Amino acid sequence: MTLRVAIVGLGKIARDQHVPSISAVEGVELTAVASRNAELPGVLNVATIDDLLAHADAFDAVALCTPPQGRHAQAWKALSAGKHVLLEKPPGATVAEIASLETLAREREVSLFATWHSRFSAAVEPARLFLAGTQIRSVRVLWKEDVRKWHPGQAWIWEPGGLGVFDPGINALSIVTAILPEPIFLDRSDLFFPANRAAPIAANLGFASPSGLSVSAEFDWRVTGGETWTVEVDTADGLLRIQNGGRLLDLDGRSMTDEPDLEYQGIYARFRDLCAARSGDVDLSPLQLVADGFLLGRRHEVEAFHEEPAR
Amino acid sequence: MTLRVAIVGLGKIARDQHVPSISAVEGVELTAVASRNAELPGVLNVATIDDLLAHADAFDAVALCTPPQGRHAQAWKALSAGKHVLLEKPPGATVAEIASLETLAREREVSLFATWHSRFSAAVEPARLFLAGTQIRSVRVLWKEDVRKWHPGQAWIWEPGGLGVFDPGINALSIVTAILPEPIFLDRSDLFFPANRAAPIAANLGFASPSGLSVSAEFDWRVTGGETWTVEVDTADGLLRIQNGGRLLDLDGRSMTDEPDLEYQGIYARFRDLCAARSGDVDLSPLQLVADGFLLGRRHEVEAFHEEPAR
Repeated sequence: MTLRVAIVGLGKIARDQHVPSISAVEGVELTAVASRNAELPGVLNVATIDDLLAHADAFDAVALCTPPQGRHAQAWKALSAGKHVLLEKPPGATVAEIASLETLAREREVSLFATWHSRFSAAVEPARLFLAGTQIRSVRVLWKEDVRKWHPGQAWIWEPGGLGVFDPGINALSIVTAILPEPIFLDRSDLFFPANRAAPIAANLGFASPSGLSVSAEFDWRVTGGETWTVEVDTADGLLRIQNGGRLLDLDGRSMTDEPDLEYQGIYARFRDLCAARSGDVDLSPLQLVADGFLLGRRHEVEAFHEEPAR
Repeated sequence: MTLRVAIVGLGKIARDQHVPSISAVEGVELTAVASRNAELPGVLNVATIDDLLAHADAFDAVALCTPPQGRHAQAWKALSAGKHVLLEKPPGATVAEIASLETLAREREVSLFATWHSRFSAAVEPARLFLAGTQIRSVRVLWKEDVRKWHPGQAWIWEPGGLGVFDPGINALSIVTAILPEPIFLDRSDLFFPANRAAPIAANLGFASPSGLSVSAEFDWRVTGGETWTVEVDTADGLLRIQNGGRLLDLDGRSMTDEPDLEYQGIYARFRDLCAARSGDVDLSPLQLVADGFLLGRRHEVEAFHEEPAR
């Protein structure tokens, strides 16, 4: 039976990833879109989640691609109506709000899926398997990009709950928490806030673990001329490197991935299977590390950020 | 069998509360103290947790009264040595670090108790019972005190992980999360940082809940001339007021408490029972709300804070 999906929020991530991936995955079909600003041909188009739920027969599941700050109310309505719910990352504006959604999903016997798209990249599963069989010496995360190139005009990302540089950085944390054989937790956090913004433009983090793993991460949005989305793991059997945000994996320079990258197709294949089983998949550890990063963070003020660079 | 307790960190809270409460509770005995700066007559005195664990026969359980920033390492060592562990509030500098302690405690079959002393105040249980049987309209928390009076010289409280005004505020959150019939989560957070400090001196918070409860909280450290530690709950059956941090409870002005306040005695009686059963009690919801408050927080800079007021 085909899973009929309605997308809420037809922004960049929905158009670039969700729409084509739903088309490509067997057993999943896009039947509706709720968006105030945009339409998609060939499906039911409405403005809001409320309008969508007035056409409840048209879909089985909702994919929430709206900014995280308003997502709880939308998810609550959809779950209450007996619809499965997929949450883009981050799953919400706070950690605690997700617990109530999990409870409701269980009561209604529908699926709640908090997605971490980077976990579906080609490098993650082979990296996890390799690290399970070796000794890890240290982990170094470098996640650096140009915010003007990757988040043009995304005002919400600079607002409280929008996470700032943690919006891409949480992708790195979703990889690290998936591949390491033990949990990690923050023990150092330096956050760099532009003088005119409510969210950090860079962060330097240090993590500890029960066995004493050394993990560091540098997130920076001020890097132009090319991205660095890398996780380096120094092990007893060589230097394992995840590059291109999870697309590439190598050990001492020898490639270990040969599969194509299917991040969002992997997400929708898993969502289809979760919905069929009416089970959930909610791992909050990446968002928890971000919340802890703010809790423990030492704030540093840096140069104001303007969307249009000064001439 | 008497539970032999070692206190780590003989600061203000240990002297004011832990030492006398351990004396007062049957079945619990103080046998050791680890402190760099202070000693207590009649018990084993050492400097550090490592020194303490070199005398492992002298105690069964450790009460960690040190600042939260270094507590994880101490708790890890004590649990690894097979000792029960009591954590003063807040239980750690981050939420995620506590999960690894819970796992270890289960493995070693010892007790881990994350304490919230305000939950043992006289008002909490009658308030919880009353609220379970009425309709709640709104909740208003006012938690205001003079930081110079209540936290003199506590430099750690202004450091990252020290929580600032959330150090007392988390007591209010521990009460609110104990008495309300459903979970709450942040939907608004304004944080006021002195220009020269890494932690907030005041916070205004708004919370939501699954059923649409309206909960607000004002924390302020800049109030002189008397404390306000109040939780007001407007209900269909009258205005329920918790005052004096949990010592007093009244409904429309009529007192509903007549028991003496035994916060820390309640803690040690419960710890004794938990250890006898080798079970744990770790509720992180107050700390989670604080972490979410930082995550979602909008920062406002206010006047610099100096321990000695300007003349």
